[in-house]
Amino acid sequence: MPGFLRVSTVERARATLDRFWRPSPRTSVLALEDVLGRVLAEDVISKMDVPPFDRASFDGYAVRASNTFGADEGRPVELTLVGRLRPGFWPKRRLRSGECVEISTGAPIPPGADAVVMGEYASLEKGKVRICRAVAPGENVAERGSDLRRGRVALQKGEVLTPVKAGLLAAVGVKRVRVFSPPRIAIISTGDELARPGGCLAKGKIYDVNGTTLSGAVRECGGTPVYLGIARDRVSDIRKLIRKGLRRCDVLILSGGSSAGSGDVLPEIVNGMGSPGVIVHGLALKPGKPTFIGVLGGKPVFGLPGYPVSAMMVFDQLVADYIRALSGLPRPRRLNVRARLSTRVISARGRKELIPVKMSGKDGPTAEPILKGSGAVTSLSMADGYIEVPIERELLEEGELVEVKLFGGA
Amino acid sequence: MPGFLRVSTVERARATLDRFWRPSPRTSVLALEDVLGRVLAEDVISKMDVPPFDRASFDGYAVRASNTFGADEGRPVELTLVGRLRPGFWPKRRLRSGECVEISTGAPIPPGADAVVMGEYASLEKGKVRICRAVAPGENVAERGSDLRRGRVALQKGEVLTPVKAGLLAAVGVKRVRVFSPPRIAIISTGDELARPGGCLAKGKIYDVNGTTLSGAVRECGGTPVYLGIARDRVSDIRKLIRKGLRRCDVLILSGGSSAGSGDVLPEIVNGMGSPGVIVHGLALKPGKPTFIGVLGGKPVFGLPGYPVSAMMVFDQLVADYIRALSGLPRPRRLNVRARLSTRVISARGRKELIPVKMSGKDGPTAEPILKGSGAVTSLSMADGYIEVPIERELLEEGELVEVKLFGGA
Repeated sequence: MPGFLRVSTVERARATLDRFWRPSPRTSVLALEDVLGRVLAEDVISKMDVPPFDRASFDGYAVRASNTFGADEGRPVELTLVGRLRPGFWPKRRLRSGECVEISTGAPIPPGADAVVMGEYASLEKGKVRICRAVAPGENVAERGSDLRRGRVALQKGEVLTPVKAGLLAAVGVKRVRVFSPPRIAIISTGDELARPGGCLAKGKIYDVNGTTLSGAVRECGGTPVYLGIARDRVSDIRKLIRKGLRRCDVLILSGGSSAGSGDVLPEIVNGMGSPGVIVHGLALKPGKPTFIGVLGGKPVFGLPGYPVSAMMVFDQLVADYIRALSGLPRPRRLNVRARLSTRVISARGRKELIPVKMSGKDGPTAEPILKGSGAVTSLSMADGYIEVPIERELLEEGELVEVKLFGGA
Repeated sequence: MPGFLRVSTVERARATLDRFWRPSPRTSVLALEDVLGRVLAEDVISKMDVPPFDRASFDGYAVRASNTFGADEGRPVELTLVGRLRPGFWPKRRLRSGECVEISTGAPIPPGADAVVMGEYASLEKGKVRICRAVAPGENVAERGSDLRRGRVALQKGEVLTPVKAGLLAAVGVKRVRVFSPPRIAIISTGDELARPGGCLAKGKIYDVNGTTLSGAVRECGGTPVYLGIARDRVSDIRKLIRKGLRRCDVLILSGGSSAGSGDVLPEIVNGMGSPGVIVHGLALKPGKPTFIGVLGGKPVFGLPGYPVSAMMVFDQLVADYIRALSGLPRPRRLNVRARLSTRVISARGRKELIPVKMSGKDGPTAEPILKGSGAVTSLSMADGYIEVPIERELLEEGELVEVKLFGGA
């Protein structure tokens, strides 16, 4: 176990984890009505032509184009009306020369016909239709397969199934499709001071917040949170919940108890539970210095700070991408917003600093730093996201353009 | 029933509907773990002080500030160490003058103490702690209620419960909270030509797409879609499904069969089913001209075009806001993006035109119109959103800055 304070940058920490573990997503087959928001795990090949038959693009008359050649206002052509075609009904007879059939948008073109004269260029009188405009073969006809040909890729692996993309699957007759499965993420809060939200609060205790915030954040990355509850700062308690997490989940997220101070036993416990144990301890990040990464039973164990805002920011910097990768989601799902800084910010030397901000927008988007300290829970209701101050900067000026990483949701 | 072609603008259509129906959202009480993405239906008042006790903001020593007055590097003060305090444990004894206690971040300040000296300004030797920096009363202490005072509003009605906001509820001990209930939205596709996705496709039939796309779109507006299936173009069939929708849902969305052409019986049927029946028929919108709005049994019935892309755009323009209002969601949830138009666009006179676009971004965001015709389903996989050409414009120039309404999802 590398000693605490041998801090790594987030990039170096990731590179270290890469040597021990790579996300390998699972997939499953789902019914079309259940795929919204999921990510395609395979190319979907169309098994049919779309449209599946030649069909009328407008209301009018299906004709042989050659019958209309030369027709104009002054010299209309007269054709015999032999029927009517509506969408959903297959034509019963072949159209012969000199005949036409009334047709509605979307109805199949009958054999023998090859074009549609729009209603406004024709008039009906005593069973005869007067055509006053010539059409070319194929005119006003959507040809079979013109939209999507059988055997072609309808949607590609990796596409997020929005309502309209799910609609395309419906159009090509797909009923079930292979998508990435949500990874199961264990969430364990540690600390003698923590109580379950809503339970009674003994003296000296506070409610656990990270169980709620991290569960929500995991869900937004496409994962299924499995909240295993609160572990006291006791070796047996913590080991029990970690073992449970390793049995039931793909990734473990612990929070609290990772600092080098007294009573912070978490990294030692993880290290004693298997090989390689703790592989990173200490990040060049503020907040987040005591963060650790372990690997147990081939699964990653992330140890985040206990303070809720810190835990969320470190989750975002370090953990979120792995959960998205397991979910098959493309990287930049979360939205970043550019804004002007409302005030000068002085930052820690030698560490990347993350500062929660509130967005406002009188004269263009403005980011207002929330400097309540990472222990304040009201930051949670005020912060819309956070900004990064790079390692090499010690100061951001008032009015400087910054990129805000939004906490997602609204 | 106003005749077809007495077209209204979308704004006028909304004003007409307002006279007959207003969205009145329902609410329910949910457990904290189920509220992600929901909207608060009440102010949440904190029933407790946060933090619930004075606590240490740093690791160090809890002291009486008055004992440290005058202490500096040259003239340190010596205090007797009488114990250790960790988070989660309530102090057993009162601190007396001349004493100090070791304390970890987050632990309760013992009675008798009023400040914390950070560890780096103190050194321990044989039961005595040497303090080389004075502290003022309250220094390095987070006072009870300093973050959020009992009786104050923690979160306001109307807030969307993102992970961090749900976390604040946890922090103030809220276990259950009143949120808006998702409205139930009936979705009925009509047309003799339609078949259920994935079923077998008889000659002349196509798969129903709108059932899938509109269900997804309803879900993104916070509603629960209730897909009632496909109604043939027969009065009895359509009436049956509309009655079912009126019994089970808050709003009905029909698609297809609303044009004035032959076989389009939908608005007439709605008009015959009750009072006031159809209140708007015809929108000054392209696509979307044959759209209608009816009111039956005090519930709105929206009749959208049959073509999938058209149906989605009209849903977005006309229906989406009502479903969001019923869900308690704030209006501008969907993101609009500004982009340059890749090519000149000529538009219909006297109607607002909606044009599906694909986003790309070589030199800044670019919107490329998809001019495949609204019958093409591949538009569904290509279109990221659409642009509006206002009624008074007949032309948009290449390179013009346009606002793209994204179809949501990714």
